[in-house]
Amino acid sequence: MALHADADTRWQDDTLPVTSRVDALLEDLTLEEKVAQLVGLWVGANPETGDVAPQQSEMATEPVSWERAIQYGLGQLTRPFGTVPVEPEAGARGLAASQREIMAAQRLGIPALVHEECLAGFAAWKATAYPVPPSWGATFDPELIAQMAARIGVSMRAAGVHQGLAPVLDVARDYRWGRVEETISEDPYLVSAMGAAYVRGLESSGIVATLKHFPGYSASRAGRNLAPVSMGPRELADVILPPFEAALRAGARSVMHSYTEIDGVPTASDERLLTGLLREEWGFDGTVVADYFGVRFLQSLHGVAGDAAEAAALALRAGVDVELPSADAYPSLVEAVRAGDVPEELIDRAVRRVLAQKIELGLLDAGYTPEPAGPVVLDDAESQQLALQLAREGLVLVANDGVLPLARERRVAVVGPLAEDPYAMLGCYSFPAHVGVRHPERAMGIDIPTVLAELRTRTNATHARGVDVTDPDTSGIAEAVTTAAQADVCVAVVGDRSGLFGRGTSGEGCDARDLRLPGKQQELLEALLAAGTPVVVVVLSGRPYALGEVADRASAVVWGFFPGQRGGQALAEILTGEIAPSGRLPLSIPAEPGSGPGTYLTPPLGRPSSVTTIDTTPAYWFGHGLTYTSFDWTPAQVADPVWDTAGSARLTLQVRNTGERAGTEVVQLYLHDPVAQVTRPVVRLVGFARLDLEAGEQATVTFEVPADVTAFTGRDLQRIVEPGRMQLRLARSAGDVQSTLELDLVGPVRTVGHDRELFSAVHVEVN
Amino acid sequence: MALHADADTRWQDDTLPVTSRVDALLEDLTLEEKVAQLVGLWVGANPETGDVAPQQSEMATEPVSWERAIQYGLGQLTRPFGTVPVEPEAGARGLAASQREIMAAQRLGIPALVHEECLAGFAAWKATAYPVPPSWGATFDPELIAQMAARIGVSMRAAGVHQGLAPVLDVARDYRWGRVEETISEDPYLVSAMGAAYVRGLESSGIVATLKHFPGYSASRAGRNLAPVSMGPRELADVILPPFEAALRAGARSVMHSYTEIDGVPTASDERLLTGLLREEWGFDGTVVADYFGVRFLQSLHGVAGDAAEAAALALRAGVDVELPSADAYPSLVEAVRAGDVPEELIDRAVRRVLAQKIELGLLDAGYTPEPAGPVVLDDAESQQLALQLAREGLVLVANDGVLPLARERRVAVVGPLAEDPYAMLGCYSFPAHVGVRHPERAMGIDIPTVLAELRTRTNATHARGVDVTDPDTSGIAEAVTTAAQADVCVAVVGDRSGLFGRGTSGEGCDARDLRLPGKQQELLEALLAAGTPVVVVVLSGRPYALGEVADRASAVVWGFFPGQRGGQALAEILTGEIAPSGRLPLSIPAEPGSGPGTYLTPPLGRPSSVTTIDTTPAYWFGHGLTYTSFDWTPAQVADPVWDTAGSARLTLQVRNTGERAGTEVVQLYLHDPVAQVTRPVVRLVGFARLDLEAGEQATVTFEVPADVTAFTGRDLQRIVEPGRMQLRLARSAGDVQSTLELDLVGPVRTVGHDRELFSAVHVEVN
Repeated sequence: MALHADADTRWQDDTLPVTSRVDALLEDLTLEEKVAQLVGLWVGANPETGDVAPQQSEMATEPVSWERAIQYGLGQLTRPFGTVPVEPEAGARGLAASQREIMAAQRLGIPALVHEECLAGFAAWKATAYPVPPSWGATFDPELIAQMAARIGVSMRAAGVHQGLAPVLDVARDYRWGRVEETISEDPYLVSAMGAAYVRGLESSGIVATLKHFPGYSASRAGRNLAPVSMGPRELADVILPPFEAALRAGARSVMHSYTEIDGVPTASDERLLTGLLREEWGFDGTVVADYFGVRFLQSLHGVAGDAAEAAALALRAGVDVELPSADAYPSLVEAVRAGDVPEELIDRAVRRVLAQKIELGLLDAGYTPEPAGPVVLDDAESQQLALQLAREGLVLVANDGVLPLARERRVAVVGPLAEDPYAMLGCYSFPAHVGVRHPERAMGIDIPTVLAELRTRTNATHARGVDVTDPDTSGIAEAVTTAAQADVCVAVVGDRSGLFGRGTSGEGCDARDLRLPGKQQELLEALLAAGTPVVVVVLSGRPYALGEVADRASAVVWGFFPGQRGGQALAEILTGEIAPSGRLPLSIPAEPGSGPGTYLTPPLGRPSSVTTIDTTPAYWFGHGLTYTSFDWTPAQVADPVWDTAGSARLTLQVRNTGERAGTEVVQLYLHDPVAQVTRPVVRLVGFARLDLEAGEQATVTFEVPADVTAFTGRDLQRIVEPGRMQLRLARSAGDVQSTLELDLVGPVRTVGHDRELFSAVHVEVN
Repeated sequence: MALHADADTRWQDDTLPVTSRVDALLEDLTLEEKVAQLVGLWVGANPETGDVAPQQSEMATEPVSWERAIQYGLGQLTRPFGTVPVEPEAGARGLAASQREIMAAQRLGIPALVHEECLAGFAAWKATAYPVPPSWGATFDPELIAQMAARIGVSMRAAGVHQGLAPVLDVARDYRWGRVEETISEDPYLVSAMGAAYVRGLESSGIVATLKHFPGYSASRAGRNLAPVSMGPRELADVILPPFEAALRAGARSVMHSYTEIDGVPTASDERLLTGLLREEWGFDGTVVADYFGVRFLQSLHGVAGDAAEAAALALRAGVDVELPSADAYPSLVEAVRAGDVPEELIDRAVRRVLAQKIELGLLDAGYTPEPAGPVVLDDAESQQLALQLAREGLVLVANDGVLPLARERRVAVVGPLAEDPYAMLGCYSFPAHVGVRHPERAMGIDIPTVLAELRTRTNATHARGVDVTDPDTSGIAEAVTTAAQADVCVAVVGDRSGLFGRGTSGEGCDARDLRLPGKQQELLEALLAAGTPVVVVVLSGRPYALGEVADRASAVVWGFFPGQRGGQALAEILTGEIAPSGRLPLSIPAEPGSGPGTYLTPPLGRPSSVTTIDTTPAYWFGHGLTYTSFDWTPAQVADPVWDTAGSARLTLQVRNTGERAGTEVVQLYLHDPVAQVTRPVVRLVGFARLDLEAGEQATVTFEVPADVTAFTGRDLQRIVEPGRMQLRLARSAGDVQSTLELDLVGPVRTVGHDRELFSAVHVEVN
């Protein structure tokens, strides 16, 4: 298509600096055209033809005329792939055609930026479904996460997508929340490390990473999706914000506000967070995008705006640059500017960010073409292999009396509602569970072998379902018990079925009342245990569950947080000992189904005491995990126990695989700060090293721990490093300390800004 | 005893102003003597002789020499009556003897101020046990609460006590917390009204009222006693603090800090709250006392002090004047002052407040004598009658299909663990449950007729226990079912047994995992319902419980929050229709046992929505309650729908008793503020009128609603009245609106300070 004849085309000149190009283009845009750059439109590809527009998503709030919606241009195209199952090639072609229409309709030929979900893989039909984020946390292997994210990015780029709505950096606070399956961990250090790795990987492919949900979403009251958050500024700064800080430093170019409100202020309207903190303090210059319908929610859910126009003005002023996904409120900004209610500078501020990003992405270069540059393959062998590796590293053996690994010759009864269910491997943002499940006319699109199928190829396996995940019918328990009784060992596969908005037991809008296993699964487990055959409990879930006495009576417990399309294989490999388990719990497994919320990250006052009947000690601590070999740790040593508030402490220890086979140890470094001006967690993670060691092999692990990692938000809300006696604890989990070092942090109190060190450096030498 | 010969005795001159007397005395005190005025000592009277000292309480952390403890004087004597059962007369004599010893030991003859608990009555053996605070809330009758508090005060004065550790002004936030039984309500307006009434009453008797727990204790994480509080400044200001503001204005002379920490800052060390807010902003000039051991907890539980001396310095600096109950930390202040670590001005600041209070109480007048002035009777007929009246007004009929009132001739099966249990009437701060239960050699001291005993005098009653409150034994259910089956109606009395630190299911240190009835009581109820006889469920508890389907299947549900020593009688009267029920729920009864915390007081985002599986609609709303007659309400009318931000709105409505018998209606006024700069509760109480109307009688109710009651803490943390469209809803409960008025609040945004109007004025005219 041809540009309008008299257009100033300096903005297309990729030899000019981005800001000059933005300036040139902004000058040429009318107010309507500017505002059009600030809105998204939700479209879903036609599963037959791959056409994207003019078909509107079933999620659109009201019918929108495509021609009208794009008449002044369009900021973003929302979810062309993640709304209906469409063949990747056809989808990419349809998307390109839509881009052509947008470019044709817009006076200057500006294409839309295209975004799609990619929580645990590109949310598209026939794309690789990786394990969900808690499984990443369980790997303690940031490099692997970066590789996965890079692969995800490559597949999105191939399909014509520019921005991915991931990673989720919410720190899990209440396991009842349905979206715990989207969180990496309950520990901000681990979320920071893994989240930053994801960003590095995704951005390396050219895809814009979108940090979400900024901030506080995971702390919604009682774990109810979108419920208000009761939280003070210190907890926000010390627990919730650090992963965002780390991920921005890793190069993320977009941030999505959270739906929630913190202490009465909806984040979508919070200028202090979206502009004060993000822009002015942290220096972020990418885009802030709305969580879907979040601008309109300022009126309809929060009650801080009287109508859509007020909501738009509030959000824009606070710092929300782009309204996603459909133009519910921002179009009113045209009139608001004309009426003098909203300064045009605020529009320009947002448009500049959008245009700069489009320029960076090459969308505004003279030669830009939207058509796919090559084949659109979303589930290639390399991706599949990565998905398998992630599943292998992310499964956690939490208990084992020796029954595992299973002897080859044993008869195995594989029972439970998830034994034969491919969906048991998937979180609610994996395409088959997210959208595909509502399109039974199409197959899942990817091959997802079940636990049963994988065990059948390796053992003499029998099967009975027992119960459903949610159905209260218990008539199948008897058969399951009989099946178990006739076997040498019973593998019971229980847990969640993920889904959206009540269609599952985990996932967005699937919050739990308490942490009992859903449905009658606990009853099934108790019946199996009563049968006498040793029971290996396999939990495939999106959140921790309290197993009660079952945890003590089972012969082994293996936990998998939706381990992705190759989870069945990885699980079978671990159960049979083909590979050794190596994951560590990213979320504590509580002992009590009620009594929440709470995570390991609590100050002393939150720990068990004589002043309450409630014992919060978890069944299995954050960081816990077993394998099939044993390790000896030397006590950690420190060269100099005096630690400068502006310096680093250097610790060393040796870890040796003393068993008969290869295995993985995760050395975890925790900080205990016994006295501070505000209360501090009893321990918190400040470093880790994943060690894969052959039998007999020894590693020397060195941690360089910057004093900055001891920083916290003091009484006057400044982040400080405070001198004093510190303990560094080398541990196998938050509850299993191997050795402790006492150090004296000396020097003046230091205020630490955005340039602080975020991580301990780790050096591993295998001897 | 004689004063030291050369003492300046101007401080004993009650014709001089208090400050002059304080100045004169302070000048004469050595540092040791000053610090001695800042500590308490926990003593327990000898049950045989009434001697208080030198016997030390079993709660004392370590043996203390009495002579040594009082050598420089003593600020406070802790709990001489509430620690062991002692005859009131003997206790008072023993206390006076101890005072004589203290006066003799102290160089200038300064006596100790004596404090005792009085949550729901003087915590002494043989003192009247009134209903617990949620029952006060249920009465919606502040005048009655004031009368009760005045009677409590009179009994304490008679015994030689000066300060009462009540009222508890914590606003219930999580029903799982064991101390919910000590809270008046989940609504700050109701807590304010009732708490202020209690203060007026208690202070009218000359007893120093102590507001506790300042602030935030009720919002401890997961309802676990002492767990940390996640809360921002806005929620604190708008929900937690208002009752303290109201009670200080009502004349309270002491405040107790809470054990908790809010967003990482222990309140015992929070200068901004204890000095900035309390003293500088609110102008409070009484004493701030420590919750027991709370100063030491800064070191042992919070980790903000390295040792007792640091803890003492922190607390003193923050504004804790008196360390209660045993001198764990403050004695170290002598050395700290000498070492220059703590300025003596801080000591003087606290001592001045203590001495001023002793002067106000007459303890430092020349003619002071500690001996009782008259007989020490703690449970006289007037008090008993008040306890009965409170029980009558505080019981709530929450459901009734017509089975109530019980026809006289019916055969009634009275079953359940609480039917025959006098302790079912008492909260854990009533003496028999608090201390007496550990002294079985002494009787309860007061007469507490059970539900069964009272029903036996009125009906043809049979009895079976069924189950225990906590014991899992269900073998008695069969007999209970048989008993029920043979009767016309079954009254099942279930709920809590209160106790301290795990000795009960409700009370301090008795937190719940979820809101299922304790033990096997739900199973008992289900079995009874299955038997076919109509079941009236009577819950006597310290907190709400979710009854599940039982609530729908029972013929009636009556709720009593530990209704005190005459609760059995009041309950029998209501069940048989001798009197009509008149209470209204001060706490919502949830539908779900998990899914907490949450109260009716939530912004729109906290309400049920399509984005979560969890429906938070309670089974019975805050404010709900039935009676045996019916009422017609006219729609409310407003003279002028324009409401000035500096003025009042005047509403009127008529309520008529349209039934056959006398009854009580509680007209509740709720504010709905649809759009504000921060999120607001969907509704919150801003006025109420309790109407006792004969059959056919009509009342005209007028509310004068000051715009100040619409105030909230805005974006910049200032409390403001914000103009805009408002709704005032006249309602029978938070979920049952009878009529709505739309008003336009007009004028400038007004910042409102400590002089704001706290309450709507109510005028009732019966025609």
